[in-house]
Amino acid sequence: MNKKQALVSLIMGSTSDYPIMETAAKFLNEQEVPFEILAFSAHRTPMEVVDFAQNAESRGVRVIIAAAGMAAHLPGVIAALTPLPVIGVPIKSSIEGIDAAFAIMQMPPGIPVATMAINGALNAAILALQILSTGSDETAVFYKKKVKDYRNGLKEKIRKANDDLKEAAFPYRVK
Amino acid sequence: MNKKQALVSLIMGSTSDYPIMETAAKFLNEQEVPFEILAFSAHRTPMEVVDFAQNAESRGVRVIIAAAGMAAHLPGVIAALTPLPVIGVPIKSSIEGIDAAFAIMQMPPGIPVATMAINGALNAAILALQILSTGSDETAVFYKKKVKDYRNGLKEKIRKANDDLKEAAFPYRVK
Amino acid sequence: MNKKQALVSLIMGSTSDYPIMETAAKFLNEQEVPFEILAFSAHRTPMEVVDFAQNAESRGVRVIIAAAGMAAHLPGVIAALTPLPVIGVPIKSSIEGIDAAFAIMQMPPGIPVATMAINGALNAAILALQILSTGSDETAVFYKKKVKDYRNGLKEKIRKANDDLKEAAFPYRVK
Amino acid sequence: MNKKQALVSLIMGSTSDYPIMETAAKFLNEQEVPFEILAFSAHRTPMEVVDFAQNAESRGVRVIIAAAGMAAHLPGVIAALTPLPVIGVPIKSSIEGIDAAFAIMQMPPGIPVATMAINGALNAAILALQILSTGSDETAVFYKKKVKDYRNGLKEKIRKANDDLKEAAFPYRVK
Amino acid sequence: MNKKQALVSLIMGSTSDYPIMETAAKFLNEQEVPFEILAFSAHRTPMEVVDFAQNAESRGVRVIIAAAGMAAHLPGVIAALTPLPVIGVPIKSSIEGIDAAFAIMQMPPGIPVATMAINGALNAAILALQILSTGSDETAVFYKKKVKDYRNGLKEKIRKANDDLKEAAFPYRVK
Amino acid sequence: MNKKQALVSLIMGSTSDYPIMETAAKFLNEQEVPFEILAFSAHRTPMEVVDFAQNAESRGVRVIIAAAGMAAHLPGVIAALTPLPVIGVPIKSSIEGIDAAFAIMQMPPGIPVATMAINGALNAAILALQILSTGSDETAVFYKKKVKDYRNGLKEKIRKANDDLKEAAFPYRVK
Amino acid sequence: MNKKQALVSLIMGSTSDYPIMETAAKFLNEQEVPFEILAFSAHRTPMEVVDFAQNAESRGVRVIIAAAGMAAHLPGVIAALTPLPVIGVPIKSSIEGIDAAFAIMQMPPGIPVATMAINGALNAAILALQILSTGSDETAVFYKKKVKDYRNGLKEKIRKANDDLKEAAFPYRVK
Amino acid sequence: MNKKQALVSLIMGSTSDYPIMETAAKFLNEQEVPFEILAFSAHRTPMEVVDFAQNAESRGVRVIIAAAGMAAHLPGVIAALTPLPVIGVPIKSSIEGIDAAFAIMQMPPGIPVATMAINGALNAAILALQILSTGSDETAVFYKKKVKDYRNGLKEKIRKANDDLKEAAFPYRVK
Repeated sequence: MNKKQALVSLIMGSTSDYPIMETAAKFLNEQEVPFEILAFSAHRTPMEVVDFAQNAESRGVRVIIAAAGMAAHLPGVIAALTPLPVIGVPIKSSIEGIDAAFAIMQMPPGIPVATMAINGALNAAILALQILSTGSDETAVFYKKKVKDYRNGLKEKIRKANDDLKEAAFPYRVK
Repeated sequence: MNKKQALVSLIMGSTSDYPIMETAAKFLNEQEVPFEILAFSAHRTPMEVVDFAQNAESRGVRVIIAAAGMAAHLPGVIAALTPLPVIGVPIKSSIEGIDAAFAIMQMPPGIPVATMAINGALNAAILALQILSTGSDETAVFYKKKVKDYRNGLKEKIRKANDDLKEAAFPYRVK
Repeated sequence: MNKKQALVSLIMGSTSDYPIMETAAKFLNEQEVPFEILAFSAHRTPMEVVDFAQNAESRGVRVIIAAAGMAAHLPGVIAALTPLPVIGVPIKSSIEGIDAAFAIMQMPPGIPVATMAINGALNAAILALQILSTGSDETAVFYKKKVKDYRNGLKEKIRKANDDLKEAAFPYRVK
Repeated sequence: MNKKQALVSLIMGSTSDYPIMETAAKFLNEQEVPFEILAFSAHRTPMEVVDFAQNAESRGVRVIIAAAGMAAHLPGVIAALTPLPVIGVPIKSSIEGIDAAFAIMQMPPGIPVATMAINGALNAAILALQILSTGSDETAVFYKKKVKDYRNGLKEKIRKANDDLKEAAFPYRVK
Repeated sequence: MNKKQALVSLIMGSTSDYPIMETAAKFLNEQEVPFEILAFSAHRTPMEVVDFAQNAESRGVRVIIAAAGMAAHLPGVIAALTPLPVIGVPIKSSIEGIDAAFAIMQMPPGIPVATMAINGALNAAILALQILSTGSDETAVFYKKKVKDYRNGLKEKIRKANDDLKEAAFPYRVK
Repeated sequence: MNKKQALVSLIMGSTSDYPIMETAAKFLNEQEVPFEILAFSAHRTPMEVVDFAQNAESRGVRVIIAAAGMAAHLPGVIAALTPLPVIGVPIKSSIEGIDAAFAIMQMPPGIPVATMAINGALNAAILALQILSTGSDETAVFYKKKVKDYRNGLKEKIRKANDDLKEAAFPYRVK
Repeated sequence: MNKKQALVSLIMGSTSDYPIMETAAKFLNEQEVPFEILAFSAHRTPMEVVDFAQNAESRGVRVIIAAAGMAAHLPGVIAALTPLPVIGVPIKSSIEGIDAAFAIMQMPPGIPVATMAINGALNAAILALQILSTGSDETAVFYKKKVKDYRNGLKEKIRKANDDLKEAAFPYRVK
Repeated sequence: MNKKQALVSLIMGSTSDYPIMETAAKFLNEQEVPFEILAFSAHRTPMEVVDFAQNAESRGVRVIIAAAGMAAHLPGVIAALTPLPVIGVPIKSSIEGIDAAFAIMQMPPGIPVATMAINGALNAAILALQILSTGSDETAVFYKKKVKDYRNGLKEKIRKANDDLKEAAFPYRVK
């Protein structure tokens, strides 16, 4: 992959979201997806959001991930300004993150946002990888293999869990 | 008042919100507040929202009322683009309007939206009138009197309620 | 497009979901996206879901849309069995659809489902179109144009709303 | 009881659920119920869940307890694949466990899951014991006595509570 | 089966619950499960509930289904007074049935209630059948076959749904 | 009882609450409790609420029932101004009455309001009767008998329910 | 007051509720109200609850306070078995105490429970005092004075708050 | 500005709210807005609230900010007694602050309260500044400039966030 050309934009409203979103950055890096990380606020720097969203596609970005908490407008506002698919991550910062989840998920007809679980940063990055692997061009073929490898690896976690659970010894436990 | 210069902007996302917001329009009209009604969508026509919000103050508007349902971004997006006070009305169109209420009320620090009750169109207009009546210029003095007259009238409603309740006759009711 | 090869699978649990999901079918049809409609249930026909999900990619499907209500397991179960991106539509059939929304959105790390608004069938189809238009192959280029045309059309709805609102005549309304 | 033949299967998605579910394991052990503990994930190892669920009955298992958090699909997916009664335990890992509770409880008609309180591991084991004691075969008779003994013991806890409360001394407290 | 000996007790608080619970009665009847229907109220006739619950087991009842709405105490109160497994059905009569669901599901440690979906009468009956079929006595063997037959029939519903969906004809639909 | 001296005040904010609260009026009348019905609003006629609440005790009122919807301040405001026990009835007029329930129930330490179920008008009147029957004076003795008679009558409702349920005839129903 | 005769019964399900309910005990003691503290469980010792509730009135108790968490049946079950007014305190032990609040507040018509705020132990004791002071017998007159004295004291708290706030010094603060 | 004449009243129910509301005091001070801080309780000192609210306008106050938790009646009660605009801040002290948010936001028609986010003290002060800057008198002109300066400063926060994010270095991160 061309490391100079970001395929995924990772957007967040403040550095306080970064500890959650770092999981997404790490995953994209591991999967060799060139990405950019930028801070914007739908409320504090609205015109910069407009500029970013209107130009993302022409700069070569293919998928946008946007994280926000509370009245989380950022993903929806970006989605309104770009033809690219936008993935939204509700960040928990009040009332258990339910406000952010509804503010991202309940988009009106016309402008979808692909909503992840509350604080679901990793899944946002996985979905971005799946979207990149859609189609038949070279990029898609390259990332499709990575999607499949990653998924095969998931089983390992369960296998390890079963190993750990072996330590739970009870006379009436059947193994 | 100069009927050519709107002091209040009444913004909504679609004509389906109008039956709720008509109460606000009627109230502003009764109180002799020049106002405008416009349809915008934070998601479908984002750039027109930007234009409107950036120019409202210089056109002489003093207060903006914005109504929206579901992931109700419109009031917050407008508030991000204008120094004017913005009043938000959550419209009930799904999950009892709770999604819209949180999406309007839970604004992050820096950009307030004065949130009304779900479908609380009348109160939005009353608050706009109260804000217009703040201060000491001629406009404020004119509307301050109207605020007070309106509030005195509220008691009538209760008086009428008591009259209506007189019809509830029971042997053990003491009057 | 090859009308014999479905690019999008539209899955639902019963015919009672069809009146909601028909909007998605119509949109895909209008945008010339070959699609299939199938009924499965994560609970009543689990093995058929397994078969479908494991073979969808090799049959040429690129995106799956799955709708379900209540304890809505269908989108997540399909997502667990395919490398394709899965879009979930929570159907409102009890407690305002909140049960289905959480059962689809709150996926654990590893298996994302792109969650739409409650009853958000149209947005599911739009997101599917956006995903198809990711990349640089012929299919992507063909649908990218459609995404942009559709979005330009959204403004019309607001323009029409403004026209309709013109009928709301008040002496103090400024036009 | 034959300690080689598990009558109850205790299933969980990861070792992080074990501290909660250990209470169930301890109870089954105390009541001399042969049981097995296994880790599966409806999302990460779906085919292993299929294998487990389809074979549990023929292996002699009589009741399955499945614990899961977030979009908790595991109990429902297992219930779809076995004629055995399935008990679901919602694990609290986000939004107070309400997501898991709805994702387990709100099963559509046809496939029940016996839902316990959030983190209600002990009650899952007690219900399993009650189910084992249904009927008239030797196993049922053996466990019916244990159900009754356990319930008689519950009163002790209250008696101890009353003893502890005796230390709360106030001049106006009547004893 | 001996039609004079009820194996399942179907309890409800008032005749207003019957339209919901009739589904359970019909299912038990179809599966040839002798059952009784009784009205009790944890609040209005508490001592009759005590009598019923304390004697159900010795009368030969094996499973109790109890339905209740609002502050739904009936299932929990019965469960406290019998060693039999108790299945609770939350009836929707206010706030979407969420009050009843929590009042039934959130049982404290020691006394489980197998909670069904809101208004989930059919699933209560199915679970009762599954519990009756646990074990190895004649009754269990008789009902085990019925559980399996019923579950095989579920697939028919989906097959019919697919047939119905065939009528949804679109040029771009692939069949 | 002296029919000229109201023992219970029934307060509501508008005549729209009367259809719900009529049940309370009827019950008080049947139990021969002299009562008054008045309309006040914590928000529209605050000073009249102050006058009412400060004088209720000296006028001989013993219990106040106050009903209100939405941001239901009336019961709490009255409770702040009188030493009498205040019973609050949340009226459902938005979001299923949950707003009113919390606004009445969640009183801070110092000023209790005895909160009833949403729309629980009858229970408010019953509790008022129970409070009147506390103590040993003539009034208390008179109403204590009525409390007991009323409660004995509750069993009738269940008896009638059982009679009605007799019509549900199934071959496998045991009677 | 006769210190040998409890006027108020303070009931709780376990010693874990005592740290919350101690506030109620202290208040009753300060107000010279003879009271008893007892532990019962609607689920673990149902027959003892029956005995207690059926005999409380004849033992001279005038008001019962019952605290419970989760599926909080204790207050409602007691209320079903006594003509005395019952005050319910929802204890927060899961999902923020909302389960307990609904399980206590949403009582069906016929059997009221005077519901307090979540963990609202102090208010339960205050309401008990207010109920004791209803009427004209010697006990009522004695406690009526205490209600009024307590309420006068509440203002002190606010006065102290204002004193504390004086330390918040800002150049633009006007005092 | 005349530092002897408070333009904004900052009201709270107890000193426990001060740590949250201090942000508002600091902001008003920074913007050179003369303000007062007072403690009142709608429940504990209702008559002092009446006095305050009825006299605030004649004392020269232009905007009132009122903070309260739980059944948060203070903002609504003040709003009922003054023609001034009232801004309400829901304080989180139980069930995540949702009770306070609804008790402030869901005001009935006639008396609006401009509701802020849960614990949204800073936004309350910003909105007060925006309201002061409405109109054309000297005060308005003075504060209008401050609103604009403050808003320009918001962008700095995002710029700093972007600087901080630069430290997140990954091989595949594009900068």
